[in-house]
Amino acid sequence: MTTVKLLLHCEDKPGILAEVTDFITVNKGNIVYLDQYVDHMENIFFMRIEWELKGFLIPKEKIEDYFETLYAQKYGMSFRLYFSDVKPRMAIFVSKMSHCLYDILARYTAGEWNVEIPLIISNHPDMAHVAERFDIPYYVFPITKENKVEQEEKEMALLAEHNVNFIVLARYMQVISENMIEAYPNRIINIHHSFLPAFVGAKPYHAAFERGVKIIGATSHYVTTELDAGPIIEQDVVRITHKDSVTELVNKGKDLEKIVLSRAVQKHIERKVLAYKNKTVIFS
Amino acid sequence: MTTVKLLLHCEDKPGILAEVTDFITVNKGNIVYLDQYVDHMENIFFMRIEWELKGFLIPKEKIEDYFETLYAQKYGMSFRLYFSDVKPRMAIFVSKMSHCLYDILARYTAGEWNVEIPLIISNHPDMAHVAERFDIPYYVFPITKENKVEQEEKEMALLAEHNVNFIVLARYMQVISENMIEAYPNRIINIHHSFLPAFVGAKPYHAAFERGVKIIGATSHYVTTELDAGPIIEQDVVRITHKDSVTELVNKGKDLEKIVLSRAVQKHIERKVLAYKNKTVIFS
Amino acid sequence: MTTVKLLLHCEDKPGILAEVTDFITVNKGNIVYLDQYVDHMENIFFMRIEWELKGFLIPKEKIEDYFETLYAQKYGMSFRLYFSDVKPRMAIFVSKMSHCLYDILARYTAGEWNVEIPLIISNHPDMAHVAERFDIPYYVFPITKENKVEQEEKEMALLAEHNVNFIVLARYMQVISENMIEAYPNRIINIHHSFLPAFVGAKPYHAAFERGVKIIGATSHYVTTELDAGPIIEQDVVRITHKDSVTELVNKGKDLEKIVLSRAVQKHIERKVLAYKNKTVIFS
Amino acid sequence: MTTVKLLLHCEDKPGILAEVTDFITVNKGNIVYLDQYVDHMENIFFMRIEWELKGFLIPKEKIEDYFETLYAQKYGMSFRLYFSDVKPRMAIFVSKMSHCLYDILARYTAGEWNVEIPLIISNHPDMAHVAERFDIPYYVFPITKENKVEQEEKEMALLAEHNVNFIVLARYMQVISENMIEAYPNRIINIHHSFLPAFVGAKPYHAAFERGVKIIGATSHYVTTELDAGPIIEQDVVRITHKDSVTELVNKGKDLEKIVLSRAVQKHIERKVLAYKNKTVIFS
Repeated sequence: MTTVKLLLHCEDKPGILAEVTDFITVNKGNIVYLDQYVDHMENIFFMRIEWELKGFLIPKEKIEDYFETLYAQKYGMSFRLYFSDVKPRMAIFVSKMSHCLYDILARYTAGEWNVEIPLIISNHPDMAHVAERFDIPYYVFPITKENKVEQEEKEMALLAEHNVNFIVLARYMQVISENMIEAYPNRIINIHHSFLPAFVGAKPYHAAFERGVKIIGATSHYVTTELDAGPIIEQDVVRITHKDSVTELVNKGKDLEKIVLSRAVQKHIERKVLAYKNKTVIFS
Repeated sequence: MTTVKLLLHCEDKPGILAEVTDFITVNKGNIVYLDQYVDHMENIFFMRIEWELKGFLIPKEKIEDYFETLYAQKYGMSFRLYFSDVKPRMAIFVSKMSHCLYDILARYTAGEWNVEIPLIISNHPDMAHVAERFDIPYYVFPITKENKVEQEEKEMALLAEHNVNFIVLARYMQVISENMIEAYPNRIINIHHSFLPAFVGAKPYHAAFERGVKIIGATSHYVTTELDAGPIIEQDVVRITHKDSVTELVNKGKDLEKIVLSRAVQKHIERKVLAYKNKTVIFS
Repeated sequence: MTTVKLLLHCEDKPGILAEVTDFITVNKGNIVYLDQYVDHMENIFFMRIEWELKGFLIPKEKIEDYFETLYAQKYGMSFRLYFSDVKPRMAIFVSKMSHCLYDILARYTAGEWNVEIPLIISNHPDMAHVAERFDIPYYVFPITKENKVEQEEKEMALLAEHNVNFIVLARYMQVISENMIEAYPNRIINIHHSFLPAFVGAKPYHAAFERGVKIIGATSHYVTTELDAGPIIEQDVVRITHKDSVTELVNKGKDLEKIVLSRAVQKHIERKVLAYKNKTVIFS
Repeated sequence: MTTVKLLLHCEDKPGILAEVTDFITVNKGNIVYLDQYVDHMENIFFMRIEWELKGFLIPKEKIEDYFETLYAQKYGMSFRLYFSDVKPRMAIFVSKMSHCLYDILARYTAGEWNVEIPLIISNHPDMAHVAERFDIPYYVFPITKENKVEQEEKEMALLAEHNVNFIVLARYMQVISENMIEAYPNRIINIHHSFLPAFVGAKPYHAAFERGVKIIGATSHYVTTELDAGPIIEQDVVRITHKDSVTELVNKGKDLEKIVLSRAVQKHIERKVLAYKNKTVIFS
């Protein structure tokens, strides 16, 4: 069953919800999902609606055009349409740690996610054996201060060649440059190994240990040009005690990291995330 | 700012959401909240919508009638209207433990809840001093096997006299009879000191200890005639270890119980709970 | 049953644990609790041991002296002895919010804690009615930039007069001066309304809302001269969503604050917290 | 650094802790870990102690004998010794679901666990491709009512041949017979997809959905002859809402299952679990 997913936001005005649902109903679309939210402080209306393509009177290729003309212009909407028969294409960036990578590839191989993973990119050769186990091409681009710009350009060419829609940084230990971030706005998903905004930057488990916190966390967010400061998609935490060494924090953290990252990636794939003003609306 | 809250459910059909929102918008109601949900398995549409009374074209006292005539009959809806300037009236039933009672009365006295608490009923005199601290009338109805029916009738007369809308069992250690349950359908809120459906019945902490669980819980639910089996409103849990004795489980559990019960009561007061077929829809 | 609680720490050396337990056993002390921990990085041995006074061969008033002479000097130990029949005396500082205050007083009145609360101090008169409900003297010391030193001196005189051992800041919205902190080292317990070290300082819920986090927290810690940076005793968190306004964060946070603060106070009263180098060892 | 781990329990008597630590210290063993616990209700002493083999005066192969003679007989102890240079050998049993299997194999391949996995056994061929990716022999034993006894005998022969010490049921959808359970007492680790004792038996997610719970869980336990009733090693939970279908419960549950199972297996491998009277002591 192919469905159409429509995500939109605009200034809130009376009648928008009624008009949009009416548009689908009148044109014989069977709505299978609807979630909406009004930010009353900012007066913004957010909506995610999904309906079956079968039986819908407007041809698939004209839906965007019609919606643009009939509603988006009228209400000043930003909107995106997604068809469930088009699989988004995702690249994984990884460095030397395998836990997030395995978790993603296990889900992918088990068919849990409606996604294609055409390639894995790394700054180190270490994870090549994992890529091989799952039969996914693995490209190594070693990064130094000197070659960073150049290497990222090559990476972007490769991503373009593979029609990659979004990037998942599965514990990729390099800061992404502005150039690449701007090419993938709110389409690079990172996992930071702390409960942001606590412990921004490198070595958060060491910092958590030093501070003597009783709970550690992990945060998945879209990458923006400010380090570890992009819109948060998902977070989770786990209790620790004074008995846990840094090594034990790292190990407990790994389980958090992989689950939090995979939850965020899944929500992104399902088009349930709408980033707005450095925050996210997560549809149910 | 007085608002109208409308909760409804009915068989799902195209256009209901548009029609209901349209009804409010067309009549100049400013919608401040909307949440809806479709149970696609049962094909039921659930909705909670709230709008400002001020400026609404239909007079307050006629809204119910209009909505009934125009929509409820057409779609076979069950619905309820609530006005925010009408405070629901709540009775507390308590036995010998004070933790839930204090938590409720502290919130009430601090003005956290839009509710009136005209009386507290108990089968023991022990908590009279707490009621006194908060200046709330306290009535004792000792219960024995022999006098139960009779005493409950007196309680119900007292509740009617005080125009009580719903009852909160704040660790009231008596099973409520069918007669009273039927007088307050989905209006008696209980806190059970376990993660239901585990450990139904008396002494759940002892049972949890015996079973050696690593997590204990508390469950707030509407009371139905089947013991501990009514629609669940809220649950929460806390970790324990082999070092925790039954006494420590009881103490850790108390914190859970009071928070879980208060969350459930608050949702009920805010009209965010819709019970349906022994389950609850909890609006956001 | 009166017990003796002994908390100690010192450089770790072979045999300490055996010697200390032997000291109690040989002198006919019935050990009812023992927890120990070695920080292998810093090479520090931490221990909490509790035994029944009845039947112990060394007289109550000489235990400290004997232990000092026989073991503490030999191993360079820091140690403290506590007798369960001596109730610690605790002062509550509060400003205008009642939730933590009610939670503490409810537990106190119900006899949950082995503590005396001889007085409540505030910089505002607002909470006098709560103190009155629980029959506890309430003193108001309004604080301005100009009178702060002077007022704190009066507070400290009052605390001394009431033989107060430790202070609980139950959402007291004033920074405590160095002078008072040094008079109560690791004996002033604060509740900070964020998951420290995220959102240090004022208005953490506003900051959390701005940052768009998906989880909020509360942190109880000992007060040191660096703001919100003292040894953490307890933390907990709760999930939020994009739908939660600042007001809703504040409300959800209140439940966290009171539970986290009360857990920390309870551990302190039970002598289960040992602060060391700006961190805490929490005995089980 | 090779270490010796000693786990023991016996009736609690004064002096045991001192004697056991003294035994190690006097014989020049450097203690790197000690955790003990007294069940005061049952009067049982539990202990886990670990020390470096290097420099220990008693030869490795005689430690067991000495300890038996000097202490175990005297105190009526049950005890087990483990050397860190001996890797336990673990078999995985799996049916058709891959999530727990991938999680275990990813950790194993990354070297997180001090364990050998010589083989995987299944009642279905479906997961052969996963075993192949990780180069682990995969054996299929289809099970019917008729051949169950016979097939389990073959499995046990295979396990014996591979010197398997313990078995992990990674969502193995067959009840294990008494015969095999008795051959591996407290050495078969299962993951049950509910918060036991709620929803014992098949289809717990369906049952959870029907009951309308607000939280689901997973439980890892040792297998005993009573179904889903063995000693619990680890549990965890996740929140759900009325919007979650059974499919979504299954998916959310998968993440719980794999994390909970892997935590339990890790604790077992690290010898941190001591099963006693259908409960577990989990050392820190």
